[in-house]
Amino acid sequence: MPRSRGNALIGQSGGPTAVINQSLVGIVETLLDSDRVRTIYGAVHGIQGVLGGHLIDLSREKAKTLEAVARTPSSALRSVRKKPTPEECRKILDELERLDVHWFFYIGGNDSAETARLIESMAQEDGYELFVFHVPKTIDNDLRVTDHCPGYPSAAKFVAQAMMGDNLDNRSLPGIKIDVIMGRHAGWLTAASALARRFEDDGPHLIYVPERTFDLARFAADVDRVVKQHGRCVVAVSEGIHGPDGKTLVEAKERDSHGNVQLSGSGALGDLLAAEIKTRLGAKRVRADTFGYLQRSYVGVTSEVDAKEARAVGRFAAKMALKGKLDSASVVIVREKGKKGRYASSCDLTAIANVAKDTRPLEPRFLKGDHDVTPAFLDYVRPLVGDLPEVARLSDFAPKRKKTKPATR
Amino acid sequence: MPRSRGNALIGQSGGPTAVINQSLVGIVETLLDSDRVRTIYGAVHGIQGVLGGHLIDLSREKAKTLEAVARTPSSALRSVRKKPTPEECRKILDELERLDVHWFFYIGGNDSAETARLIESMAQEDGYELFVFHVPKTIDNDLRVTDHCPGYPSAAKFVAQAMMGDNLDNRSLPGIKIDVIMGRHAGWLTAASALARRFEDDGPHLIYVPERTFDLARFAADVDRVVKQHGRCVVAVSEGIHGPDGKTLVEAKERDSHGNVQLSGSGALGDLLAAEIKTRLGAKRVRADTFGYLQRSYVGVTSEVDAKEARAVGRFAAKMALKGKLDSASVVIVREKGKKGRYASSCDLTAIANVAKDTRPLEPRFLKGDHDVTPAFLDYVRPLVGDLPEVARLSDFAPKRKKTKPATR
Repeated sequence: MPRSRGNALIGQSGGPTAVINQSLVGIVETLLDSDRVRTIYGAVHGIQGVLGGHLIDLSREKAKTLEAVARTPSSALRSVRKKPTPEECRKILDELERLDVHWFFYIGGNDSAETARLIESMAQEDGYELFVFHVPKTIDNDLRVTDHCPGYPSAAKFVAQAMMGDNLDNRSLPGIKIDVIMGRHAGWLTAASALARRFEDDGPHLIYVPERTFDLARFAADVDRVVKQHGRCVVAVSEGIHGPDGKTLVEAKERDSHGNVQLSGSGALGDLLAAEIKTRLGAKRVRADTFGYLQRSYVGVTSEVDAKEARAVGRFAAKMALKGKLDSASVVIVREKGKKGRYASSCDLTAIANVAKDTRPLEPRFLKGDHDVTPAFLDYVRPLVGDLPEVARLSDFAPKRKKTKPATR
Repeated sequence: MPRSRGNALIGQSGGPTAVINQSLVGIVETLLDSDRVRTIYGAVHGIQGVLGGHLIDLSREKAKTLEAVARTPSSALRSVRKKPTPEECRKILDELERLDVHWFFYIGGNDSAETARLIESMAQEDGYELFVFHVPKTIDNDLRVTDHCPGYPSAAKFVAQAMMGDNLDNRSLPGIKIDVIMGRHAGWLTAASALARRFEDDGPHLIYVPERTFDLARFAADVDRVVKQHGRCVVAVSEGIHGPDGKTLVEAKERDSHGNVQLSGSGALGDLLAAEIKTRLGAKRVRADTFGYLQRSYVGVTSEVDAKEARAVGRFAAKMALKGKLDSASVVIVREKGKKGRYASSCDLTAIANVAKDTRPLEPRFLKGDHDVTPAFLDYVRPLVGDLPEVARLSDFAPKRKKTKPATR
């Protein structure tokens, strides 16, 4: 039986994406259409806002503002990286009960799904009617069950365009270039750099992801081989690459409350790899860039498919929550066969436990050897990212010899 | 007297830009319209291609290809960072004479202008008729005489959009964020990050440029003050910032043949500043990103004004070279008053010596204190960059108290 009346609360959690507000607005607009939901609370900084009493009223927001917010990257409700203790879960649930909240939407990745699951199970123990919906987002694309995650296609587009430019730059001024791309446990985003290739000798020439064990000596040998072939080398490497012991190359000191090591917001890995290449190969022009936070927050580069799907998962979550067929669920995207073989997708539900905690690595069928992706991966990612800008080369026509005068000196 | 007949040669030099090929195509299409120019040589990797005999024939290129190349970032002729020795200048001039080249176009920054000037003066000594034209480009915007440099507006647009996103990201997950922006001697590009501000508390909150002496203790105090005010801090810093001794913060080991220290392609400065802030302020969440080569080569973010002007300077150089009123010159952009106060510009010429070697720092009227820019700078840069994407915030309406039930626990 669907609940007749009550309030709703929405939070955003974890790393922002370019389209996370599409999902927020998708939920809000769908709830606004129902006369059963009175107040739509927004939790500022996710569960931190619930704990600290920092809530806003989203029901009063104008449609025009909501639309503009939907097109704006990065969590409009502001975000949080926080794994609640059992005591905090208790407090959060108390607050939800006090506010008469019966629909709780948490937009986030696998850590946020785990938080939603904890609150869900405590509400069940309490016998408090609470529909908990996890709405997926992550540029890492590492949630289980779903075909892909909202936020990933836009980040993949940013990375592809960055790599297209960087390959052109490297062709112009040859050398060895290492680009560090986000991806703690999974190489989905790094793999998307392969979309940058247009010509046979285009980079990225080497792609290293956390799904494969990384070895510095083998890496140097790979780079050396590419340089001998092309006179230059562009490398895409996930921030999460690690040796056989599972330890990341840069052991940062800082861990967040989910136990994650800080990998982003530092140039350390890129600089380490560049130094190794300089030492091992004696190469002169070695550069490293870390694409950093731009990958998830850059304004002005959004995948159209991503924006639409992020809105759709928000709408679907709210619609299903109002139907009340399931107490709680996470939304997943299902890839469909569209007309004339075109890309299409639909939404479905799965239990939150199915997406919480653990992540999904790149599938073996998407990986070619230990430093490239397969055509199957490109087929997977291309429709999500959409059209990329065209780039062209000169034909490099040889001059006709006869037109030159004989040398006079 | 304009020269009646001969061949032309074009080279691209120094760091690429997003629109450097617009200038190349502007020259080529203008020369193709003249029946006085027989072959248009392209020097692959600039003067390196002349020295090594790596030339291509641009006259045979299809218009459609040229147009596609014009829209492609990064030097299509490929580039070089090379200061020729007198012996090499001699060789280059010999080769130009052998090829019957009487029009030499060099697209580049101040270092490339110096190379053009050296070849020009040697041709004069030789009594060899050579029209040498320097066609400006540099994302650093640090050429003298010209109002601004082709390439700068597009890089400024990339930086502005990056900073807009990064500010949103930092608002979502507060902390201290340091963004390192290209600019060895001049802070023009770093200053453009100020375009990202929309709301009063938006970053960048602090902007440090090489025109002002940088002091770590003062920097830490500035950050501390901003964090106390806004609970967060976004910093834009030029890679070329330096202490009172003129030494850059990171003394890299590598110098190019113009005597420049390697500042780009490394996360060292950002990591150094982040570590200092962590130590001095005891701050926890401190992150640094180095925008890196994406600033000059990113595909898909180009200023329309920049693309048009880069094409125009190429056309103007070729037109003036064919007129032959001056032996040699560099093209400059003059800012005009357009209709209804709108932005407009035209091209003019100056002696190459006026733009060679030395660079132009940010003018004092554009700098506010030691860590911000003035409204006059924003008026200067805004029309060059053009419209930026809109971003919006939620209104943060307070919930109505009466709708909540009294606490039951």
